[in-house]
Amino acid sequence: MPAIADTPEPPYYAVIFTSTVTGDNSGYQETAQRMLELAARQPGYLGVESAREDVGITVSYWRDLEAIRNWKAQADHREAQRLGRERWYAQYCTRICRVERDYRGP
Amino acid sequence: MPAIADTPEPPYYAVIFTSTVTGDNSGYQETAQRMLELAARQPGYLGVESAREDVGITVSYWRDLEAIRNWKAQADHREAQRLGRERWYAQYCTRICRVERDYRGP
Repeated sequence: MPAIADTPEPPYYAVIFTSTVTGDNSGYQETAQRMLELAARQPGYLGVESAREDVGITVSYWRDLEAIRNWKAQADHREAQRLGRERWYAQYCTRICRVERDYRGP
Repeated sequence: MPAIADTPEPPYYAVIFTSTVTGDNSGYQETAQRMLELAARQPGYLGVESAREDVGITVSYWRDLEAIRNWKAQADHREAQRLGRERWYAQYCTRICRVERDYRGP
């Protein structure tokens, strides 16, 4: 995937997922990688950007709210969400956003 | 600042700034730190989250679009934006978003 997601003209949607981790990362890398691959095959997927230091930020981009709902409800993703809540994440916040404008450079 | 921004009930706004760097980081750390401090003193500022690996992601949160416009136009920030374009960033994308929903856990 490109480092900066190659999203279309707005409007579209972003899911900002911010997290801190517990330190128990058993199974995390494999699951995270598989979720990126699965998300990319979902209808309405537009791209993803991700980085972690003190905090992890993963922003996924979607055509509309229905695409986000479908991804949230996807069976393997629901299981990953459960593991995240029970094992990996000390704290997290998911924000559903409508992207109204964007600009690129330089 | 807390790792995960302590934002109020939606709606509010997010600016997702994603970047890759050139490798010339002269002056970068000091300026980035000063911009975080200045942003936090702007009217309508709600918080920030930031991480960098292959890509850098900084998400700042704001009460409304006017607060975002004022921050974009702030004089020291304009100078930092110019340095970013000319020196630090290989590529960047700024996305202006309306946060419609959020949820936290675990």
